[in-house]
Amino acid sequence: MRRWCRTGATLVFGTGLGAAVSGLLRLRGAQEEDARAGLLSRVPVIPVPSVRASELTVSPGGSGAVMKYGFPSLANIKTRESYVTSYDPRTRTASWVIERLNPASLSGPSNRKYCDFKEDNSIHVFHRSTNADYRGSGFDRGHLAAAANHKWSQKAMEDTFYLSNVAPQNPHLNQNTWNNLEKLCRSLTQRYLNVYVCTGPLYLPRQEADGKLYVRYQVIGQNQVAVPTHFFKVLILEPADGRGVELRPYVLPNEPIDEKIPLERFLVPIETIERASGLLFVPNIMKRTSSLQAITGK
Amino acid sequence: MRRWCRTGATLVFGTGLGAAVSGLLRLRGAQEEDARAGLLSRVPVIPVPSVRASELTVSPGGSGAVMKYGFPSLANIKTRESYVTSYDPRTRTASWVIERLNPASLSGPSNRKYCDFKEDNSIHVFHRSTNADYRGSGFDRGHLAAAANHKWSQKAMEDTFYLSNVAPQNPHLNQNTWNNLEKLCRSLTQRYLNVYVCTGPLYLPRQEADGKLYVRYQVIGQNQVAVPTHFFKVLILEPADGRGVELRPYVLPNEPIDEKIPLERFLVPIETIERASGLLFVPNIMKRTSSLQAITGK
Repeated sequence: MRRWCRTGATLVFGTGLGAAVSGLLRLRGAQEEDARAGLLSRVPVIPVPSVRASELTVSPGGSGAVMKYGFPSLANIKTRESYVTSYDPRTRTASWVIERLNPASLSGPSNRKYCDFKEDNSIHVFHRSTNADYRGSGFDRGHLAAAANHKWSQKAMEDTFYLSNVAPQNPHLNQNTWNNLEKLCRSLTQRYLNVYVCTGPLYLPRQEADGKLYVRYQVIGQNQVAVPTHFFKVLILEPADGRGVELRPYVLPNEPIDEKIPLERFLVPIETIERASGLLFVPNIMKRTSSLQAITGK
Repeated sequence: MRRWCRTGATLVFGTGLGAAVSGLLRLRGAQEEDARAGLLSRVPVIPVPSVRASELTVSPGGSGAVMKYGFPSLANIKTRESYVTSYDPRTRTASWVIERLNPASLSGPSNRKYCDFKEDNSIHVFHRSTNADYRGSGFDRGHLAAAANHKWSQKAMEDTFYLSNVAPQNPHLNQNTWNNLEKLCRSLTQRYLNVYVCTGPLYLPRQEADGKLYVRYQVIGQNQVAVPTHFFKVLILEPADGRGVELRPYVLPNEPIDEKIPLERFLVPIETIERASGLLFVPNIMKRTSSLQAITGK
């Protein structure tokens, strides 16, 4: 199982990942769709028999529970009421944000109208984005951990409005396909015990006219906040029987996407995200089982 | 003093830093040269009366001594025989490398001909550069901590050949002006007790035809190693009387530079590097003095 996961991923990753991801997703023909469906059906399922999701008794969507499957990196970690994040002071956005969704975290009296986007004062002023950076930029302040995922507590919802949990996002994407992906995450709590969601920006290269690969991204405002070329969302799903973990890694380009395109089309091998982001997901997840040998051989 | 440093820096930093830095350095007219000379004469000098450079008794250029003025960031720290570094797994190069030079570290029997560039196995294979990535790329494997700075020990010199201490560098720059800057660092050990050198890559934005700012950099090889647009070198100099610390922050574009241009032209306010890199130097240096108040008021 594990070996397949790595091998399959290697085939997809190579030169021109940036172009490959957005190109693949929108231009794929019928034949490629079939291959893709096959790939999707083999999304890695890593059983973790010795761990029960119910063993962690903290507040519904609280950050304590979020660390169950470890962190994809250990730089500049910040713990909020509703999520844990790693901040990248060079791009002025998070490297990743992890939250845990379940029916309890999704219900409550919290109201978005009492929330305002705010600077994160825990970050040095040289490396912090402000509301002014976004004004007139043409980009939305796109939540990484979504506000509607944290209705269980007004404080939890408010914490998602820190600009360190935000990245410049194409408005059409934010309000349509990205919103649909966020809704999908919430709806999955009806089928899974817990839905762990890790979200972050990507800066993917693409081939230019000279045949070479370049990473190119806009920066906005006085603080030169990086506009990601893509976003990832890695879903770690715990089935109700507590016997396995399912991974669903998505990559979406930061541009308008036709809402008719099914979200499954944006699934990629986890290795694609691990290589491009500089993060690691699988090794930490594997640490949560005491019987790796048995699982590998499955 | 401190206030000036910050204010002066703000004037230089703003929109189009990338274009500003390389543009400034090569196209500056006589009038601007005069202004620049004035700026240079006001390079920040931050006295640290309570600290003696001689208080740390470790091997000549060893990594233990390097941390005297703290680290510019705390992510993925690696300690080598001759330097300390922070690795950026997304770009496959270091964020910074710090070393300490003095006459003792510069002399010894070490020989470069016994050194080979080598992969850093301490880094996950997804995020590691290889010699193959550089082959045929048109870029040199540019040392961040220079090999010739660590003649005191063969092991120390060999450690500078880890590819995690290397970034893709324009060959002309590497072999000429950059080499001269490295030589300057070594020659300063004749005037200063210790010369702390922090080196790293920068990815600076420049204005494109649409009037917006973009960061754009090439990536090379299978592992898509980022080619920095610029490099910085921050020198922290300890005068022989042990009564002060002098800062010399340089930024050089990663392109051929006419050797006739004096190195002083590449001096920038430290804030320029702090903002662009996501790193901080000054707060840590200030922590090394117990009488900050008196210094600020000087």
